[in-house]
Amino acid sequence: MIYLDNNATTQIDEKVLEEMLPFLKSEYANPSSMYDFARKPAAAIKDARVKVRDFLGAKNEKEIFFTSCGSESANMAIRGVLDCNKEKRHIITTKVEHPCVLNTYKYFEKNGYEVDYIGVNSQGELNTEELKSKLRKDTALVSVMYANNETGVIHPVEEIADYVKSKSPDTRVFVDGVQAGGKIPINVKETQIDLLSVSGHKFHAPKGIGALYVKPDVRITSLISGGHQERGLRAGTENVPYIVGIGKAAELAQEALKYEATEVKRLRDKLEAGILKNVFNARLNTSITNRVPNTTNIGFEYVEGELILLHLSDLGICASSGSACTSGSLEPSHVLRAMGIPFTALHGSIRFSLSRFNTEKDIDCVIEKMPIIMDKLTKISPFQAELAALKDRT
Amino acid sequence: MIYLDNNATTQIDEKVLEEMLPFLKSEYANPSSMYDFARKPAAAIKDARVKVRDFLGAKNEKEIFFTSCGSESANMAIRGVLDCNKEKRHIITTKVEHPCVLNTYKYFEKNGYEVDYIGVNSQGELNTEELKSKLRKDTALVSVMYANNETGVIHPVEEIADYVKSKSPDTRVFVDGVQAGGKIPINVKETQIDLLSVSGHKFHAPKGIGALYVKPDVRITSLISGGHQERGLRAGTENVPYIVGIGKAAELAQEALKYEATEVKRLRDKLEAGILKNVFNARLNTSITNRVPNTTNIGFEYVEGELILLHLSDLGICASSGSACTSGSLEPSHVLRAMGIPFTALHGSIRFSLSRFNTEKDIDCVIEKMPIIMDKLTKISPFQAELAALKDRT
Repeated sequence: MIYLDNNATTQIDEKVLEEMLPFLKSEYANPSSMYDFARKPAAAIKDARVKVRDFLGAKNEKEIFFTSCGSESANMAIRGVLDCNKEKRHIITTKVEHPCVLNTYKYFEKNGYEVDYIGVNSQGELNTEELKSKLRKDTALVSVMYANNETGVIHPVEEIADYVKSKSPDTRVFVDGVQAGGKIPINVKETQIDLLSVSGHKFHAPKGIGALYVKPDVRITSLISGGHQERGLRAGTENVPYIVGIGKAAELAQEALKYEATEVKRLRDKLEAGILKNVFNARLNTSITNRVPNTTNIGFEYVEGELILLHLSDLGICASSGSACTSGSLEPSHVLRAMGIPFTALHGSIRFSLSRFNTEKDIDCVIEKMPIIMDKLTKISPFQAELAALKDRT
Repeated sequence: MIYLDNNATTQIDEKVLEEMLPFLKSEYANPSSMYDFARKPAAAIKDARVKVRDFLGAKNEKEIFFTSCGSESANMAIRGVLDCNKEKRHIITTKVEHPCVLNTYKYFEKNGYEVDYIGVNSQGELNTEELKSKLRKDTALVSVMYANNETGVIHPVEEIADYVKSKSPDTRVFVDGVQAGGKIPINVKETQIDLLSVSGHKFHAPKGIGALYVKPDVRITSLISGGHQERGLRAGTENVPYIVGIGKAAELAQEALKYEATEVKRLRDKLEAGILKNVFNARLNTSITNRVPNTTNIGFEYVEGELILLHLSDLGICASSGSACTSGSLEPSHVLRAMGIPFTALHGSIRFSLSRFNTEKDIDCVIEKMPIIMDKLTKISPFQAELAALKDRT
């Protein structure tokens, strides 16, 4: 099997699982308990928090809160900030956010909030000037993802945070960092970002663990209220094995950042170039260099994405046509639509997302198979005249 | 080690871990993905949902929603119901609920809701008549835990649900079933309960997985909004390993219910009788038979609970002085205070909570050690006159 859907989820690194196992077996104490038996899990949580602190470049481990996933982190940030600043009822975000962010703003829109959704250009780059122009006195929250999950495009979140804070210090800046964590360095302490979310299963921890960075002076209310866990901000008995897992995964991801930036990027670029060269109806949906190193999004004109995925799946190749969180819906990607990708490529766009576990052989295989699949699929496409014209041009 | 703190958390059953492991290793696909590789995790979630359906006696697996813990389940139920019925602003609950329920109502009280907290008698039994008398036209929610975590007392939730529905069909009934799940049979389809929460780690699944039963006609909004997961009601990539785990744990717990009701109860009763017989300053905080079979709460007069726990810990015995979710606080248990336990016993009350993994030897050992510990601690107690009088009486 060739797994090129690492923006959807990743395999758990063996070293991560190894660290988790004692806490799935003999070390099962509730870390809040008084007895000696609870010391090891309590210490393990502390250790993991330090590792995630370093991973995000936070000043203090007290700024790190563990959650059950990236979606919970985003909801905790958004709902928590808005609940603490009820007099401000304006939000600025982007058209290309993840559903867990967009749908949460849709909910607030229905509940009396005004939301500005900022667009992107044809390369997926945010219209930063438009964003800046929308900032108001009653803007409660500016919310921009670090890197887009479908295109990999990196947004200038630091610049945006600086601008927002210079104009409106009370406006909170939330960054969905889920697709940046483990792919590019994050260093929150050198930014004016107030809150930043990450999800463990995007960097080789299990599915079901996330974290939220909250700057010390930022007040938020709990999404899950109850016990004293996570400094009273997120109740529920701590998921010790997964907290240990995200800690170890953060440490390993930190160590692998250079490899991501060089080797993973080299393989991604090779895949991209190979497909573009060998497949006449392929077009790069964004070619900017300012992308996370593992992601490419390629449109195959006049063919159906689902069909491409099925043919890839038959060959044991995993890729996707958008976010797994929007799958099941027949609508084309809201991200690619925001970029104005022509409809001829919109329905046939495929995201390949690599990880440090991909090999040269994986990439060579996909470069070899893609033209064969596309040969089959273009033959059954109803757009024969258009395909012929396209072939002539290339 | 002798682990008698199973109401705080339980060990993962080996059979549960065994079923989880493939999903922590090779079967790591995102269950929402299109390709073949995602079929096995998707099928495993389906299977687990059926098992939890049977465990709770729900009619349909669509009534089961997976969450990250009991606290999330409770918050999802409470916040979800209230958000959908904003015109009703009255809540009825009990004084002895878990912090994840009580603190959530404290939050709503601060936000304009009126909450009635119903008391219990000296045996921990709910004042059902008082509860019934508080029901109003604008009561949005009646919220009563199935079994108390500290005393094990079972509340008449079915009777309460029947009454509420007969008088006010639009009022929702939420039952925190966390301490009932796996200890006594639950059969929601034969009740008028609208929502019921359980937590996996209370019945030998891992910490970090819960479930919420929602009756089909009950509308709630999402606590964690975003993707389409859990029928759109709980976003976030599914925690496949733990969902598999709670499914298997539910199946095993269901099978073990008879053993709980007979063997675990026999050991609990033996422990209770043994301590009461051998320790002159011991008093049973509640002696009613209508308790979950694994729990006993014993007050040791004129000694400090923390000291007892430390001495037990030194002997490798794990027990607790209240909920792990309230630990760290120096205040005595809100549950025992609501029961009017005299202050002489309030600070020295210990909960022993068994599981199907406890043995006769465990119990014999605690019965043997308890008088030795108490002999030490009563000698250093500042209440020598009171202790002497107590000794004379017994």
